[in-house]
Amino acid sequence: MRGYFITFEGIEGAGKSTQSVMLHNYLLQNNKKAVLTREPGGTTTGKKIRDILLSHTDEIFPPTAELFLYEADRSLHINNLIKPKLQEGFYVICDRFTDSTLAYQGYARGLDIKTVKEMNSIATEGLKPDITFLIDIPVEEGLKRISREREKDRIEKEDLNFHRKIREGFLKIAEEEKERVIILNGTEKPEVIFKKIVEILKNRNII
Amino acid sequence: MRGYFITFEGIEGAGKSTQSVMLHNYLLQNNKKAVLTREPGGTTTGKKIRDILLSHTDEIFPPTAELFLYEADRSLHINNLIKPKLQEGFYVICDRFTDSTLAYQGYARGLDIKTVKEMNSIATEGLKPDITFLIDIPVEEGLKRISREREKDRIEKEDLNFHRKIREGFLKIAEEEKERVIILNGTEKPEVIFKKIVEILKNRNII
Repeated sequence: MRGYFITFEGIEGAGKSTQSVMLHNYLLQNNKKAVLTREPGGTTTGKKIRDILLSHTDEIFPPTAELFLYEADRSLHINNLIKPKLQEGFYVICDRFTDSTLAYQGYARGLDIKTVKEMNSIATEGLKPDITFLIDIPVEEGLKRISREREKDRIEKEDLNFHRKIREGFLKIAEEEKERVIILNGTEKPEVIFKKIVEILKNRNII
Repeated sequence: MRGYFITFEGIEGAGKSTQSVMLHNYLLQNNKKAVLTREPGGTTTGKKIRDILLSHTDEIFPPTAELFLYEADRSLHINNLIKPKLQEGFYVICDRFTDSTLAYQGYARGLDIKTVKEMNSIATEGLKPDITFLIDIPVEEGLKRISREREKDRIEKEDLNFHRKIREGFLKIAEEEKERVIILNGTEKPEVIFKKIVEILKNRNII
């Protein structure tokens, strides 16, 4: 017996973190064992990798180096948290996972899609989410939301066109994996979106 | 016109760093443009990656995560230092490079050799050293030397058998790439080894 692995994906400002927290709270209130985590930075060493990825630097930061760092973080995450917790029967809720790497480093930065998929598969040791919620919003709306909230990090500072490619990348992934990836309209109210998430999880006998 | 890329490889305590410094000094004294660097940690961001790799941690550190971190460091190194300096006509001397990854993460940790080679090739963007000096010594001798010098880091603390696999890995690489990789006997005096290095570089019209 094992737990369920649920991931949230989407562009900056889509509302992934809000929904992840809501689901985590909901599960705890229903006396389920559940853990909320995120990528990058789900482990102690991973937090150091996250700092490297999001810090501003004057050096050239090749997409390939980004890709390797995300995958290193993921390999640590899988071995130290995700797999052990799933084996203990926990719901593992993860804010961003492999689809983000494919959308950002693959579709947006232009790295070879097959290579990114292969690296994802090596880092995860073949583990895939049971279900993924892609919270989709227009790029302008997402960036407007995060600019209100806080200072942007290195990746958020990229231009509008870059974020459009990410959104298109996510939609392409959802199109390719219809069974796993559920698209939700991120412009709706958080409570409305969350109600749909619970409904879908119930329909699939996940909760 | 471009410079030459010269790497030094070997197990811990073989004398790579000593020979790298000697060669760097020799080139400078002969009015050559030369830069001495190392992996991991040849760039500002790379130094942070090096810290992660060598720090002690209570977390599980999968070989795959190690591999990804070394390759991230390498991708930054290639783009920020190695390629630009070679293009400016410098001699680039590097203490450890792709062969170390293949020996440590591939032959010693047991990761798939083909995968490690592929990652090396992605990180280096196909760039190979013009010549590599493999300083070979018995494992016991190398470990004896470093235990005299300083406290061991996370990787140096591995057991004798692990370091034997590394040495064998290096020798296998040298066997496969006889033209590029020159084996030197690391039990000889540093001055004797260095004289041979200069001789070989002169014979190949590298210096």
